[in-house]
Amino acid sequence: MRLSDHLPILQWGRTYNGGTFANDMVAAVIVTVMLIPQSLAYAMLAGLPPQVGLYASILPLIVYAIFGTSRTMAVGPVAILSLMTAVAAGKVAEQGTPEYLTAAIILAIISGLMLVVMGIFRLGFLANFLSHPVVSGFVTATGILIAVSQLKYLLGVQASGHNIIETLASIISHLGDVNWYTVAVGAPAVAFLFWARKGLKPLLLALGLKENIAGTLARSGPVLAVALGGVAVVAFGLEAKGVQIVGDIPKGLPGLTVPQFDPGLWQSLLGSSALIAMISFIESVSMAQTLAARRRQRIDPDQELVALGASSLAAGFSGGYPVTGGFARSAVNFDAGAETPAAGAFTAVGIALAALFLTPLLYNLPQAVLAATVIVAVLGLVDLKKLAHTLSYSKRDFAAMLGTILVTLLAGVELGVTTGIIVSIGLHLYVTSKPHFAIVGQVPGTHHFRNVNRHAVVIPKHIVTIRIDESLYFANARFLEDTVYCVLGNRPDVEHIVLMCPAVNHIDVSGLESLEAINRRLKDAGVTLHLSEVKGPVMDRLKRTHFLEELTGNVYLNQFDAIVDLDYDCAKSAIEKTGDVTDPASDPCPSQCIAGVREMS
Amino acid sequence: MRLSDHLPILQWGRTYNGGTFANDMVAAVIVTVMLIPQSLAYAMLAGLPPQVGLYASILPLIVYAIFGTSRTMAVGPVAILSLMTAVAAGKVAEQGTPEYLTAAIILAIISGLMLVVMGIFRLGFLANFLSHPVVSGFVTATGILIAVSQLKYLLGVQASGHNIIETLASIISHLGDVNWYTVAVGAPAVAFLFWARKGLKPLLLALGLKENIAGTLARSGPVLAVALGGVAVVAFGLEAKGVQIVGDIPKGLPGLTVPQFDPGLWQSLLGSSALIAMISFIESVSMAQTLAARRRQRIDPDQELVALGASSLAAGFSGGYPVTGGFARSAVNFDAGAETPAAGAFTAVGIALAALFLTPLLYNLPQAVLAATVIVAVLGLVDLKKLAHTLSYSKRDFAAMLGTILVTLLAGVELGVTTGIIVSIGLHLYVTSKPHFAIVGQVPGTHHFRNVNRHAVVIPKHIVTIRIDESLYFANARFLEDTVYCVLGNRPDVEHIVLMCPAVNHIDVSGLESLEAINRRLKDAGVTLHLSEVKGPVMDRLKRTHFLEELTGNVYLNQFDAIVDLDYDCAKSAIEKTGDVTDPASDPCPSQCIAGVREMS
Repeated sequence: MRLSDHLPILQWGRTYNGGTFANDMVAAVIVTVMLIPQSLAYAMLAGLPPQVGLYASILPLIVYAIFGTSRTMAVGPVAILSLMTAVAAGKVAEQGTPEYLTAAIILAIISGLMLVVMGIFRLGFLANFLSHPVVSGFVTATGILIAVSQLKYLLGVQASGHNIIETLASIISHLGDVNWYTVAVGAPAVAFLFWARKGLKPLLLALGLKENIAGTLARSGPVLAVALGGVAVVAFGLEAKGVQIVGDIPKGLPGLTVPQFDPGLWQSLLGSSALIAMISFIESVSMAQTLAARRRQRIDPDQELVALGASSLAAGFSGGYPVTGGFARSAVNFDAGAETPAAGAFTAVGIALAALFLTPLLYNLPQAVLAATVIVAVLGLVDLKKLAHTLSYSKRDFAAMLGTILVTLLAGVELGVTTGIIVSIGLHLYVTSKPHFAIVGQVPGTHHFRNVNRHAVVIPKHIVTIRIDESLYFANARFLEDTVYCVLGNRPDVEHIVLMCPAVNHIDVSGLESLEAINRRLKDAGVTLHLSEVKGPVMDRLKRTHFLEELTGNVYLNQFDAIVDLDYDCAKSAIEKTGDVTDPASDPCPSQCIAGVREMS
Repeated sequence: MRLSDHLPILQWGRTYNGGTFANDMVAAVIVTVMLIPQSLAYAMLAGLPPQVGLYASILPLIVYAIFGTSRTMAVGPVAILSLMTAVAAGKVAEQGTPEYLTAAIILAIISGLMLVVMGIFRLGFLANFLSHPVVSGFVTATGILIAVSQLKYLLGVQASGHNIIETLASIISHLGDVNWYTVAVGAPAVAFLFWARKGLKPLLLALGLKENIAGTLARSGPVLAVALGGVAVVAFGLEAKGVQIVGDIPKGLPGLTVPQFDPGLWQSLLGSSALIAMISFIESVSMAQTLAARRRQRIDPDQELVALGASSLAAGFSGGYPVTGGFARSAVNFDAGAETPAAGAFTAVGIALAALFLTPLLYNLPQAVLAATVIVAVLGLVDLKKLAHTLSYSKRDFAAMLGTILVTLLAGVELGVTTGIIVSIGLHLYVTSKPHFAIVGQVPGTHHFRNVNRHAVVIPKHIVTIRIDESLYFANARFLEDTVYCVLGNRPDVEHIVLMCPAVNHIDVSGLESLEAINRRLKDAGVTLHLSEVKGPVMDRLKRTHFLEELTGNVYLNQFDAIVDLDYDCAKSAIEKTGDVTDPASDPCPSQCIAGVREMS
């Protein structure tokens, strides 16, 4: 382990030169312009004062530039974490109170600490326990939740609710209070932003702009919309007509914030912080990997944990709230030609300058347009087609995804992501707890053995071969026993049972004890137990036990050897194609013993 | 589904005759004699009045006789559930209060309901998520806990504590108060019972008794000890000398008890009830299976759930506490020749008669001897050798077992069993999340492909074959990606990557998306991705997606076909043994990419 593995800045810093600086600088200017309205909008979504969004976009970016392994990812406030912060802080304090802001800061600190600890102990793999369908279900549901939560700003009404149905009902009940000036500002913004997502780039290209400049400018639609909104507010005096604006933002840089340590409060935010930490890692690491792969670079997931954690800690100690790598922002940074994390540090300087000098300009930005940028951004994350794709591939993954979406929508983000984790682990364990077994026979003319229910095969009398298509571990140990006894119960003339194990990757103690019990009980019943095609590592482990001594039969290197040894005539007749071939449709073993035969094998 | 599947009494009842009746009757008498002192002792362990033990041995036995599928299992109060009841009830009420008894009754009702529901929905497999090492660790730790909890009765002192260390410290601090009359009764009982476990049967055989009679009598040591203890109390007037005795037991049968429904109380007992339900099922089902196998009978685990649940419900509604199949008792029932569950019903009649007429006889039984029977019985469950066996086979299972033992001893039974479940599931997921991969090459002169680090093999230039030894699912999807990119990063001249999948039993959506991402990124890097030896069911599923169309390379039925197709010369030279053979020690791929190669393959 070298120091530069933990401080990647020492790697890219060594070759830093004027050319890299110029490229990073261009990207930083573009990202800064984009990040200013985004920071305000996400702070609003988190229920925090607008300057908190700016503060979360200064120090964390500098810290990520030091520790991060992605060359192009841009960190800062993001939509999902803003919503999760609102939910978590809302449980311990009222929006608008100093306690609410403190809670957001504590969330950043605890989740940051957790990420750093996970990184130090190389626990990045924990994030893998959120399956892809669960994550995409969660992102889709969160997108919908966020869009709905922003509707009130578009309409200029007061609305609130504990879940999406209450929020919608509340909005509907306030429809009479709609401020039409606000709608007149917000609705065109939404329309423009939707159009800009697909229509702006071709237009710019048609105007003769270069590909990458057109791409970058096309992503600046939100900036244009917000700027125009601000102009409209001033030009038509909309503030006086009830259009909500950003208003006063305190000028200056954040000071060092150290929230008082209140054990009760910290403890009550622990669970939420863990979920925020996990989502922040998952959000950013997959994006960092995608960006890195495009330029043949690599990221180190464990170091990413440290970097993201340090960034969140920096956010917490500088008056911000939880941050992570943002998708749109990183894509702009990448397209605009950023070469090193220094681009992030330059962006931080840009935001700091904005906080120092531009706040008067931000005063007149209409909340409706900021909400419009959030709505259009998050609706881009909603991917309901994926639900259909998942269903066509796997009912199990579909169940996990649909469950995550529904619980997230109806019971909130925290329960949603928890449910997703539990459901996907539970379903995985359930499937492996009832593994696929098949009774196999020899394909005539070959040394191959195949499922009797799928292929015309030769089966020796008095021998049953069961192929086990799963590692043997505690969750399926009893199921194996049940299957063997059931097969035996339906075939009283059997003398040998061969368990064929080419797909058994592990056998744990529970699996071993089940094999021992099967061996013992078959011995009592006068039936010999054999194994075939046991993998090397599994065999190494079995050799450390007494099982192989107690085994009534043999362990064969391959299944053909087993049949040659146990019934030479049958093996010979099968090879010479003179044996009795079973009809695959005849179902020689009742399917209730061998679960899943029809469905799987 | 026939009615007789749900009411097994309709099956065995049809062929019931005089011979079966006589055999069942003999067994019932023996079990009754054994069960009376046991019921009292276990009620004492549960912190309940002695008659509650008797009540729990009447109605539940009759109900099990109707619903149970084991012909020989004897249900009633057992040691572990008694301790778990004491722990759970102790959390909501003081021992000796009516609320404490109510809590015990509610535990029986809730856990009974849970078992019935699990049975109806065929959720018996849930019990499999307690691995064998966790269960045996739990049983061992519980045995030690129970033995320690009974020490105070042997010494005649007051002692209490929240965990084993506090209890021991409390006993030591009260050593000055030891009642030596109590010790004089209890110590010989312990010595006799330890001797009787191994020494009584040979003695009886030497005296000319028949094998099965000697076996049954040898198990009646506790009854003899308790009876002698009672005689000693009367003969030497020990009650007046401070020896604690059972004392007054209300004469008569239990009435119908229906505890008031107090939502708060029921909810606070929910978790404990779930653990009691799970342990009660695991305790009895493995024993029922063992007994059934000895006589070539079968039990139905899901119907067992219904039967055990109904028995616990019956216990709850007749003033008892949670019951399940008892090990010693069932063995006696089996050895004494019980043929049908009717033996259980006859035992219930015997206990009912005892409750009606024998309570004066039970008055003088010394608590020290009852405690001695419990101590000797539970120490028989303590199996520390198993810890060493487990360690020699699997560090992972050892960790789960040791963790369960330590947490159970130091933090109590409920946290112990919960920890065991979480640790074993967690370790299983951890192991499958970092699966074994191996780079393989062709064994000269054969069609076989083996790990390059273990065997002298031929590897074609420009082709890397990675064998995946695990199903691909969400927990290891990213790990596969990391491995492929790492292998590629270390071998810049590679043109083809073949993933060899003979041990891949499932690919879930996350695994599929990782394969898609690998295919896409390798394509960008100019490397072709192939698959080989994909299993039928996995292939069927892949055919439902676009992956096979997008795959840059081919899917080969077997690995040899892949090499023949991609590098005919190499395959030919390997078969003819003219190719360059790699040295297994040369480690052609940095081991940090292929985790576990050294340890496993």
